[in-house]
Amino acid sequence: MNALGLVSMRLCAGLMGHRSVVNLPFLRFSSGMTLSQIDEEVAKLLQLKAQLGGDEGKHVFVLKTAKGTRDYNPKQMAIREKVFNIIISCFKRHGAETIDTPVFELKETLTGKYGEDSKLIYDLKDQGGELLSLRYDLTVPFARYLAMNKITNIKRYHIAKVYRRDNPAMTRGRYREFYQCVNDRRILDGMFAVCGVPDEKFRTICSTVDKLDKMAWEDVKKEMVNEKGLSEDVADRIGEYVSMQGGQDLAERLLQDPKLSQNKQACAGLTDMKLLFSYLELFQVTDKVVFDLSLARGLDYYTGVIYEAILSQTIPAPAEQNGADEAGVSVGSVAGGGRYDGLVGMFDPKGRKVPCVGVSIGIERIFSIMEQKAETSSEKVRTTETQVLVASAQKNLLEERLKLTSELWNAGVKAEVLYKKNPKLLSQLQHCEETGIPLVAILGEQELKDGVVKLRNVASREEVDVPRADLVDEIKKRTL
Amino acid sequence: MNALGLVSMRLCAGLMGHRSVVNLPFLRFSSGMTLSQIDEEVAKLLQLKAQLGGDEGKHVFVLKTAKGTRDYNPKQMAIREKVFNIIISCFKRHGAETIDTPVFELKETLTGKYGEDSKLIYDLKDQGGELLSLRYDLTVPFARYLAMNKITNIKRYHIAKVYRRDNPAMTRGRYREFYQCVNDRRILDGMFAVCGVPDEKFRTICSTVDKLDKMAWEDVKKEMVNEKGLSEDVADRIGEYVSMQGGQDLAERLLQDPKLSQNKQACAGLTDMKLLFSYLELFQVTDKVVFDLSLARGLDYYTGVIYEAILSQTIPAPAEQNGADEAGVSVGSVAGGGRYDGLVGMFDPKGRKVPCVGVSIGIERIFSIMEQKAETSSEKVRTTETQVLVASAQKNLLEERLKLTSELWNAGVKAEVLYKKNPKLLSQLQHCEETGIPLVAILGEQELKDGVVKLRNVASREEVDVPRADLVDEIKKRTL
Repeated sequence: MNALGLVSMRLCAGLMGHRSVVNLPFLRFSSGMTLSQIDEEVAKLLQLKAQLGGDEGKHVFVLKTAKGTRDYNPKQMAIREKVFNIIISCFKRHGAETIDTPVFELKETLTGKYGEDSKLIYDLKDQGGELLSLRYDLTVPFARYLAMNKITNIKRYHIAKVYRRDNPAMTRGRYREFYQCVNDRRILDGMFAVCGVPDEKFRTICSTVDKLDKMAWEDVKKEMVNEKGLSEDVADRIGEYVSMQGGQDLAERLLQDPKLSQNKQACAGLTDMKLLFSYLELFQVTDKVVFDLSLARGLDYYTGVIYEAILSQTIPAPAEQNGADEAGVSVGSVAGGGRYDGLVGMFDPKGRKVPCVGVSIGIERIFSIMEQKAETSSEKVRTTETQVLVASAQKNLLEERLKLTSELWNAGVKAEVLYKKNPKLLSQLQHCEETGIPLVAILGEQELKDGVVKLRNVASREEVDVPRADLVDEIKKRTL
Repeated sequence: MNALGLVSMRLCAGLMGHRSVVNLPFLRFSSGMTLSQIDEEVAKLLQLKAQLGGDEGKHVFVLKTAKGTRDYNPKQMAIREKVFNIIISCFKRHGAETIDTPVFELKETLTGKYGEDSKLIYDLKDQGGELLSLRYDLTVPFARYLAMNKITNIKRYHIAKVYRRDNPAMTRGRYREFYQCVNDRRILDGMFAVCGVPDEKFRTICSTVDKLDKMAWEDVKKEMVNEKGLSEDVADRIGEYVSMQGGQDLAERLLQDPKLSQNKQACAGLTDMKLLFSYLELFQVTDKVVFDLSLARGLDYYTGVIYEAILSQTIPAPAEQNGADEAGVSVGSVAGGGRYDGLVGMFDPKGRKVPCVGVSIGIERIFSIMEQKAETSSEKVRTTETQVLVASAQKNLLEERLKLTSELWNAGVKAEVLYKKNPKLLSQLQHCEETGIPLVAILGEQELKDGVVKLRNVASREEVDVPRADLVDEIKKRTL
């Protein structure tokens, strides 16, 4: 089975967001209350309030979105649409189909799939009926979908938001280059084995290795020894391996490594890595991919090859936006994924395995970059596709404007008209300047008498009378 | 302010869905428990189980989506994409911008906006932090967005799912025609006033009138008299008005009505109705719109004109799918909306009003219709856009197939290749038949030697040798 792609818009939301409390004069403050007792009381009171207060008129609302979430304004949406179109056309070029799944799943569908991350799952309140949770990623719902529909072969992409009760890190930076890291869980496991890590510590040591993109080796080692209970020897041996980076040559060298070559898992992973690089060569992308033994990935369900796409920051981020620290730090991955051959089997009553491999793109991060680029660029982002504004130079022509607009709409032209009864020509032209509408179709008494429309190019200010019957063609010609 | 459109995919979910309980041998059954106590106990146990059970290996999962929700398979997604494209291009033709808001809002943002429907809101569990609810519609988040960003002028559309703890009625039918009903809340209020309905009963009587699309007048009258406490006289007077349907002429006649003409609200509504019909005439759509005094709409927040788009069922639905009852029944609205001038003010600390008008399209219902149409049609729904399959007629050509595929991808051609090492030509051709790929680019030893590719038309089976350098152009020419 080949699951080509999964694009997830990661929508982080607050773990310990401060509560917006509305006036509650009758709240008894007791010094002995815990934070969660307070939360509970507030919830009860707000509920009571909701039941009672409905129609009182003006409340004092706290105007905000939930912590860690954001609205997208039209400009941001225009950028988002552009990014989506590029990604979708790439998936389509490779013959992928798309599916969609509900935003929430039965709670038990998500249970036992994410390891330590499970605490970040949003649960729905028990309001009678099924116990539900918001999806945490698109991979587990996909595995559920495959098992439920007994699908063993599909190449799909899925664009949707996922929800994590994470501390939102709204890091932004300016990124100009990116490269991909590759590793394989079997190579990691083999490496842990030959270094002397006990079996039951593989996953937790894997989590520690995963921090190497944000922490120095010395600190990672400290965690391994002090928190995870490895001996210094073992940690040092791991340290030697995880500093290695290379390509096909590294895979070949490690296959000759006296210790690793004795480990079955590691050999299987290294052999597949060699094969992967031979395909990358056919696709002429070996210069963009690094075999990196420190790449670990957080989630439990990966069973083979794992990878991340990393943006490297070449221009330091402005200090006033991100703090001075960030300038030199790697910004981490914008996409990642791997092989997860066991996940679908967890949903199958007979445990039948369906091998899968996928990638998740962190769209939010890519948006931030594109947004920042748009801000610094002089080019204006259009939020509509309107080709022409139907305007009038004189009073009392609302009906004529509406009639012409309706004609244009029926002919498939993207047209707008101002809703004011008697707008000034200047304000109609200004609307075009502000929103980037390239053409204005101007009606006046004389034009109506002559059966023509004055077509104005907003940028050049050049005007020409066009017979009404030719207007649609003329607009289409000028706005190809 | 002009809020052109809001397209909401209504995603209904279960109010009292049966719980899928996993083996719980230690559950104490006590005859005195209420349903909600049981729910609570089950929730506790499942939570305990989640904490304990994580890594045991195989569980018995109940493989399903949450009640009232559904997955979309690739075929359904292809139809959904088609429907979206038609709707989006319509919004764009009229110069609309798009926005997006988070799937959940602060609970208090939704409080007091929906009247009796509030009980259908999905709340998130209190896990510390803010109290959150899933959005119930796109209108209230939109009003919150406007107030928060102090926007007084925008024409926006928004495509997103909304969540209601409703009893999902998965009605399907075959619909061939549709028309639109129009009314105005002020006309309704004026009508209630002159009929003798006490002020405080306007909204609840409005809800009863709203049932006229599903209930006979006699039953509606019974509810007014027996449940809502109106006198028979008053109900009969309402009955006379709500049976009226017409166009501009009806608005004019009612402006002369001895009772209605004395009511300020009714006159304002009727005057605007006349104006609306004069615009509809300019747009040449008066034959599609009916002024219907029985149209009421459920939600509280409408303040002026209200409307619905109704599909009329012309072919009876198959009895085995929907039960015999349904054949003759009106299928209700696929879109609806109206003017809501007070909603944004509810979010503004100073109560400043921002007049709004919008429409919501029930996409799910339209999908059902399109899906049914696709099922009965002989035309195949394609789920990919692949233009060509790169195939081989001989063994050991995987690398050559990958290389050519990569070349095509780089040139922007939508291409696929089977992942098997040595697939049979027949199974490669079958893949094209099944998925609707129109062309096959076949490689063999001879073709490689001659620097050509055999291009095969899947439908006509005609084959032609194309020089490799011309292949991209030839494929593009044939799949315009």
